Amino acid sequence: MSTTTTTAAIRVTVWNEYRHEKKNATVAAIYPDGIHEAIAAALRKHPGVETRAATLDEPEHGLTQAVLDATDVLIWWGHMAHHEVSDDIVRRVHARVLEGMGMIVLHSAHESKIFMALMGDTCSLKWREATDKERLWVVNRSHPIAAGLPEHFELPAEEMYGEPFGIPEPEHVIFISWFTGGEVFRSGATWQRGNGRIFYFRPGHETYPSYHDANVQRVLANAVFWARPTVRIPRACPRAEPLEPLPVKG
Amino acid sequence: MSTTTTTAAIRVTVWNEYRHEKKNATVAAIYPDGIHEAIAAALRKHPGVETRAATLDEPEHGLTQAVLDATDVLIWWGHMAHHEVSDDIVRRVHARVLEGMGMIVLHSAHESKIFMALMGDTCSLKWREATDKERLWVVNRSHPIAAGLPEHFELPAEEMYGEPFGIPEPEHVIFISWFTGGEVFRSGATWQRGNGRIFYFRPGHETYPSYHDANVQRVLANAVFWARPTVRIPRACPRAEPLEPLPVKG
Amino acid sequence: MSTTTTTAAIRVTVWNEYRHEKKNATVAAIYPDGIHEAIAAALRKHPGVETRAATLDEPEHGLTQAVLDATDVLIWWGHMAHHEVSDDIVRRVHARVLEGMGMIVLHSAHESKIFMALMGDTCSLKWREATDKERLWVVNRSHPIAAGLPEHFELPAEEMYGEPFGIPEPEHVIFISWFTGGEVFRSGATWQRGNGRIFYFRPGHETYPSYHDANVQRVLANAVFWARPTVRIPRACPRAEPLEPLPVKG
Amino acid sequence: MSTTTTTAAIRVTVWNEYRHEKKNATVAAIYPDGIHEAIAAALRKHPGVETRAATLDEPEHGLTQAVLDATDVLIWWGHMAHHEVSDDIVRRVHARVLEGMGMIVLHSAHESKIFMALMGDTCSLKWREATDKERLWVVNRSHPIAAGLPEHFELPAEEMYGEPFGIPEPEHVIFISWFTGGEVFRSGATWQRGNGRIFYFRPGHETYPSYHDANVQRVLANAVFWARPTVRIPRACPRAEPLEPLPVKG
Repeated sequence: MSTTTTTAAIRVTVWNEYRHEKKNATVAAIYPDGIHEAIAAALRKHPGVETRAATLDEPEHGLTQAVLDATDVLIWWGHMAHHEVSDDIVRRVHARVLEGMGMIVLHSAHESKIFMALMGDTCSLKWREATDKERLWVVNRSHPIAAGLPEHFELPAEEMYGEPFGIPEPEHVIFISWFTGGEVFRSGATWQRGNGRIFYFRPGHETYPSYHDANVQRVLANAVFWARPTVRIPRACPRAEPLEPLPVKG
Repeated sequence: MSTTTTTAAIRVTVWNEYRHEKKNATVAAIYPDGIHEAIAAALRKHPGVETRAATLDEPEHGLTQAVLDATDVLIWWGHMAHHEVSDDIVRRVHARVLEGMGMIVLHSAHESKIFMALMGDTCSLKWREATDKERLWVVNRSHPIAAGLPEHFELPAEEMYGEPFGIPEPEHVIFISWFTGGEVFRSGATWQRGNGRIFYFRPGHETYPSYHDANVQRVLANAVFWARPTVRIPRACPRAEPLEPLPVKG
Repeated sequence: MSTTTTTAAIRVTVWNEYRHEKKNATVAAIYPDGIHEAIAAALRKHPGVETRAATLDEPEHGLTQAVLDATDVLIWWGHMAHHEVSDDIVRRVHARVLEGMGMIVLHSAHESKIFMALMGDTCSLKWREATDKERLWVVNRSHPIAAGLPEHFELPAEEMYGEPFGIPEPEHVIFISWFTGGEVFRSGATWQRGNGRIFYFRPGHETYPSYHDANVQRVLANAVFWARPTVRIPRACPRAEPLEPLPVKG
Repeated sequence: MSTTTTTAAIRVTVWNEYRHEKKNATVAAIYPDGIHEAIAAALRKHPGVETRAATLDEPEHGLTQAVLDATDVLIWWGHMAHHEVSDDIVRRVHARVLEGMGMIVLHSAHESKIFMALMGDTCSLKWREATDKERLWVVNRSHPIAAGLPEHFELPAEEMYGEPFGIPEPEHVIFISWFTGGEVFRSGATWQRGNGRIFYFRPGHETYPSYHDANVQRVLANAVFWARPTVRIPRACPRAEPLEPLPVKG
């Protein structure tokens, strides 16, 4: 049996702040069941993917240790309430990523506590809510996250995010975006922290239907398969007995 | 359907110089059907892996365009006859990697024409055939190529390869070896060239039974699954029509 | 005038926990004026390097905003009292690195709050205080931090640190260590966070005279020159006016 | 004395194909003494930089072993006559880079034999000679090659180069370009091969005055200082005596 394929389902938890949808009629019209449900519904079409949702206003933000223990890949969308996410929950999620859980960070979650903790960087960027079009160029077409995509695809209206983006040099840059207003952005990039694979993906401002876009949905599904853990290893910093004979202390 | 899993078989071609086995009784005793057959037999145990062999002394070294067209992942072992490999065949293999074929380069093939062409580097190292033991430490336990491996494993006798190893900074270093005689070596590392994923793996001197080792076999099987292509894209450098209106030339 | 060389001095602050030296006669004998002073004295031999020291038990650990404002490169040694370092000071240092200050992290500071915050990783490893010898192999001889070093050098007695080391894939690995007891370790590696260059260097257990070693001193001096900032840019996440005409909102 | 600064001059050789300037009046008007002389003149303004030129139609393309031996950093511009560059000279330059010589590859030299040999990749891209404007965003403002630059700068008219660019994942991406027609491009990126530091920089189509632009000139000067060698080490693949006792062969 191959160690790299398995028939077990991938358990995805989609975390969403879930505030804009309740406060803003435009957002509610686009995502009547929340951004999380739009994403989860798209993922569930893939055989072998199981989804659950978790949101900010649930107890422990829906991210109990039991939920994280049963999560292979965590997707994170947040924006207006980053500061309301408990530091303790952030530490719990961080620890779980280091053990091996995959993590997909979306759009405005570039400034979420968990992404900033994983990156150790500013995670800052330029932004503009206006009438820009976004064109995503696939700069690494053979990366598993780009499987099945055309050479480029467009989102007719999106918030602009512009460079410099304050991230550690990515392991792989998969997408670079062009914006009408003259900016560029590394829109899809990967890192590893501990045993966890991390993917940041730019699109998804709440006032646009980006998570209903077929190419965006394909990216998210590919990323889930890519980020799936192969190990779960708790942090340890052990004293180690020598494996070879050592000289006797003089 | 997920774009990143498929039920199609992975077609592996194991290329072997196949000279030592015919000239040296020690090597023949360890690999009576050739190094290629030892590797292929281990890979065929994995459902969904199909193997074929190709060797230096076949016409076109067994690597016709038709064979390469039907190859997803090419494994390469060579040592004493690197210079006998035709430059034309090397260019053909190189082009096929750039299109997307995976490539696994073994042991003394660090000085093969194809590895040197892919790396653009010296690919040089220190070496010693003596009585060293090799201990391979898994420095990236969550990489798919390390799936199912212990934290370290040993080969009781192997040729020593020592740093500095003249390779481009790898995308991921997976193994670092410790040798009895005092050296260290980046024994497993990955790169991408064009659309092809490349893995170099150090063990496998012809006078030792390393390709019969269960951990070595697991690494090779994992690497085959990891290197499997998701695209095949021929090289092109096209003139492109603009996607947005351009100013009229003054 | 070249933009990359300058005649201004490099201002180095050497931060030391400075506890072992006061409590342990062995350590005091090796570093009578503290580890910080041994390092600073070696650096001051280089024209154009100015040093100051800062220690845990000073007010604000000696790291007031004014001191950090006047620091180009911060060196950090800590071990037994990581938890006594104030979270506020860690945030202040972190912010200063992101603006551009260079940072050199030594030995047991792999578990310091500041290194863990910069890396976002476990930073864990194996360790052993015994009778190991350490041999550092220079795997990237042309990196500026390796300038003037031989191909390898030895520290006759050091604490062992072993892989797996829980760090993000480094931008460059410069040193890999061999230990008598059978382990290996990525002993010198670089990253960037924000605008700051970061170098981790393994040697320097308090009971051994490693910071009196000529090769170790050369590494530290090289690292100071390498980490010197070329910019200081405060974190900002600004709204940006378009640089090109945007379509009018429909 | 610091090992990383020195008062010796940096010896730069600017290699130019030097054909367009002789055949095309537009190009000749922009670069009356050749592209090489425009670049060299800008570099010579920096104290400590010495320049010489070499061109395709000189014997050995001006790149004798003696010239390369006396070159610290080689700059390369070529376009219409890549195929006329002798394979032997390419091998000579390649070997010199691996020893430690810095290399700066400009614009259409993305398809030069030497860049393709160093990268091992397709080096292909999209292109268009039209009326695009190029805006270069500095995505890594603290890289030494970006010293002294604004956050972005523009070239009012340039040939378009678009992604996907067939290069190995760079060690650092410094510039990403936005083009009017809707494309993006990684316009400045670094790699290391052997002991040589390599920088690719996109601008410089022969029909535009890009090498007279102050920001472009600053990039080139910064790159020369960055690429300066700290070692010269010939390729070797030696048998190594053990540094520790080995078991006696049984």
